[in-house]
Amino acid sequence: MGSCEEHTLTLDTLNPNVIELQYAVRGPVVIRATEIENELASGVKKPFNKVVKANIGDCHATGQRPMTYIRQVLALCTYPELMNSPDFPADTKERAKKILEECKGHSLGSYSDSCGISLIRKHVAQYIEARDNYPSDPNDIVLSTGASDAIKSVMTLLLTGKGGSDRAGFMIPIPQYPLYSAATAEFGAYPIPYYLNEKNNWSLGISELERAINESRDKCKPRAIVIINPGNPTGAVLTKENIQGIIKFAKQEKLFILADEVYQHNVYAEGAKFFSFKQVLMELGAPYSQMELASFMSASKGFMGECGYRGGYAEVINLLPEVRAQYYKSISAKLCPPISGQVVIDCIVNPPKQGDPSYSLFIKEKEFVLEKLKEKAELITKLFNSIEGISCNQVMGAMYAFPRIYLPDKAIKAAEASGQSPDAFYCFALLEETGICTVPGSGFREEPGTYHFRTTILPQVEELKEVLTKFESFHLNFISKYS
Amino acid sequence: MGSCEEHTLTLDTLNPNVIELQYAVRGPVVIRATEIENELASGVKKPFNKVVKANIGDCHATGQRPMTYIRQVLALCTYPELMNSPDFPADTKERAKKILEECKGHSLGSYSDSCGISLIRKHVAQYIEARDNYPSDPNDIVLSTGASDAIKSVMTLLLTGKGGSDRAGFMIPIPQYPLYSAATAEFGAYPIPYYLNEKNNWSLGISELERAINESRDKCKPRAIVIINPGNPTGAVLTKENIQGIIKFAKQEKLFILADEVYQHNVYAEGAKFFSFKQVLMELGAPYSQMELASFMSASKGFMGECGYRGGYAEVINLLPEVRAQYYKSISAKLCPPISGQVVIDCIVNPPKQGDPSYSLFIKEKEFVLEKLKEKAELITKLFNSIEGISCNQVMGAMYAFPRIYLPDKAIKAAEASGQSPDAFYCFALLEETGICTVPGSGFREEPGTYHFRTTILPQVEELKEVLTKFESFHLNFISKYS
Repeated sequence: MGSCEEHTLTLDTLNPNVIELQYAVRGPVVIRATEIENELASGVKKPFNKVVKANIGDCHATGQRPMTYIRQVLALCTYPELMNSPDFPADTKERAKKILEECKGHSLGSYSDSCGISLIRKHVAQYIEARDNYPSDPNDIVLSTGASDAIKSVMTLLLTGKGGSDRAGFMIPIPQYPLYSAATAEFGAYPIPYYLNEKNNWSLGISELERAINESRDKCKPRAIVIINPGNPTGAVLTKENIQGIIKFAKQEKLFILADEVYQHNVYAEGAKFFSFKQVLMELGAPYSQMELASFMSASKGFMGECGYRGGYAEVINLLPEVRAQYYKSISAKLCPPISGQVVIDCIVNPPKQGDPSYSLFIKEKEFVLEKLKEKAELITKLFNSIEGISCNQVMGAMYAFPRIYLPDKAIKAAEASGQSPDAFYCFALLEETGICTVPGSGFREEPGTYHFRTTILPQVEELKEVLTKFESFHLNFISKYS
Repeated sequence: MGSCEEHTLTLDTLNPNVIELQYAVRGPVVIRATEIENELASGVKKPFNKVVKANIGDCHATGQRPMTYIRQVLALCTYPELMNSPDFPADTKERAKKILEECKGHSLGSYSDSCGISLIRKHVAQYIEARDNYPSDPNDIVLSTGASDAIKSVMTLLLTGKGGSDRAGFMIPIPQYPLYSAATAEFGAYPIPYYLNEKNNWSLGISELERAINESRDKCKPRAIVIINPGNPTGAVLTKENIQGIIKFAKQEKLFILADEVYQHNVYAEGAKFFSFKQVLMELGAPYSQMELASFMSASKGFMGECGYRGGYAEVINLLPEVRAQYYKSISAKLCPPISGQVVIDCIVNPPKQGDPSYSLFIKEKEFVLEKLKEKAELITKLFNSIEGISCNQVMGAMYAFPRIYLPDKAIKAAEASGQSPDAFYCFALLEETGICTVPGSGFREEPGTYHFRTTILPQVEELKEVLTKFESFHLNFISKYS
């Protein structure tokens, strides 16, 4: 390998936005976890036999089974020779036939329109209509390669093409899902942090939004507000009144609303309910019902957890027609989202109906997953709160807990001495001693002087119990070591 | 819908890079073609029954059948219950098992590493080694969502994060595949056009590269050179000597080489042969063999044409280790490319071997597709050159012809009067009169004062013959109308 002088790309000449970009869900702790997995595989002795990847919302990786209906439809679309097999229920065959009729050359191997297959966009709109009781226009639906792709595409529209105080500002909740800080960094845009109130169940205070935007005005042009509901990493679920307040704030500040609603099927807490921003906005009536809003959904979460298929969509409402044309154009060079991911979306938004041969199994599998998630959300909230030096808001929804850890000064100093943030120091120790892989709170940003980590609630119940027991003894040990 | 004043996004406030971005393969002619399809479906009478989409390299859309082996492996991975079916050859089951063992939770529904599944990266490296006779490191292989995604990821590394004359410059062939101009526009980078020599079979002259880069120096920082080989839209295949010259030029100018080699399986002309940039660079030895190079490949072209699965990869060699770490990090927020697309890549780079149950059918299907493409490449070259007012270089490779059309002054004036480029005017007339959908040469950029269109060679042989007959009478009619 040549020296730096011979290279076009060095750390000095690399796109500085790339250097700035961080994505903690796959950050240093996770990289170390993979190394440990390889060490275990090559026979290195550890105090554990297995790494538990609680860092990422990857349902199937932690033992969740795929939904039979989805996979049967996918298999039939992939290899239509299976249409003659008696092992596939009639409704899966009908669905696959309908989808293939919409594919050019009747093949999943052809490109679709860049916005996705028309029929599937129609089904998405019908799903939204049924959910919200307000009309949804298939032309407002844009299918995507997972939700992330759709989020970045809409953010791209909002960039100003300028730097300094003219760059676009995106209001981002703290703690956030790090896609948002990563995308803002990559785009050279400005993240405007607003803090969720941990003391009040991670609620979102309007006065905090006002503080945040006012402090940002000389640093950027505020263009949009990101809300994640149900919350990642917080597990909070917003009330309708809270959403109304956010919409009114966005209207006053002329902000585009980016509503990350990928966990809309994942609400567990008694009394909590998912309200879409679209629905609340429509209920408020004019002028709010004319506001520009993008809502994002994914095939990767909910009860299906089909992460690997990279299915997702955005509903983007109230764009000016000429702006919508530009939006369509801007995604055309990507050609189209994977067709198999589009098929997964179709199965989710238009599932088997009562009376269909696949109906009862579909419901059984769906409810099983959601009930287990609910059980685990309760289990993990309870356990974290029973440990001294840890507090954790109720996991009302989504797939994560974000407990606060109270670290002794000696631990904070030890972390500083090792050049790490205190929670990264804690998460590395947890990983090395127990094999449990989590993500330090600093990766999601957090209120200065507070420390957290994010863990998924995804391991199967028995495994989760074991993990929590191991975690507890690690934590007590860690605290006493540094006290 | 509210007025412009109420909207966050208007044409004035939209990201100007998005407005700048154009992707002709899905541009106005194609949008009109889709409208015409809808008109036909709703009973509107036209001089034709069907739109022929010769605008896009979408093999299955034009009747090519999927490779049985690929679809069987995909179906087995999707729905592993099929492992018990007697209808799948043993080698497809073995392959599917091996892939599922590498998937977390043994499911295509889990995320892979952002670079793709290790085993598949290993298979890609083995494929490249066998092709080039030089070592390939699996750590240099990054799987992607089609080649486009990989291309944009590597281009992102090369951006400077600055505007004006400090922005990154990308040398782009003219005519080009419009992904490159679209991406440069989106990134706010500077495209440095270099012209291919139509008179000499679209060859690439080193003195033209020198001219192009010299003229760009006050407008940007030249960072990389894009080469498309086999050529899109030109159909040209570069000689080894030509590639050597390009590499030496890139070395002298310290340019990162971006080699778009997605048509590496598509070489038809007698005596023409695909040489990878990697191979030629290694053959040249030091210091060339230490140059930074990215080569891109796709599941969408070749003999498989699995566009809808969005599979692709890049081999990126000679990056400094710290730069490679940044590259990996930069794609981590995208989570991973679709797993089913990764499976398609695995089948392509590691196809059935002699003696395997699927071998003979695989070879038969592959050769059938490639032979037909060769036949169509010859047919289309011959026919275009037999028509007065058209000349067309030999379609040596890839999937397109890019004939030059000599338009009468009256046609050029009529185009100007209608506010269109002359070749767009021609392509719209062709579409409205015959239903044949092509892409105007202006969408690929072309030497000023010359006019072209791009057509694929993908329709099935009998249909292609019909299309060409229709085309010929349209063309003669058009010319006489404007003479």
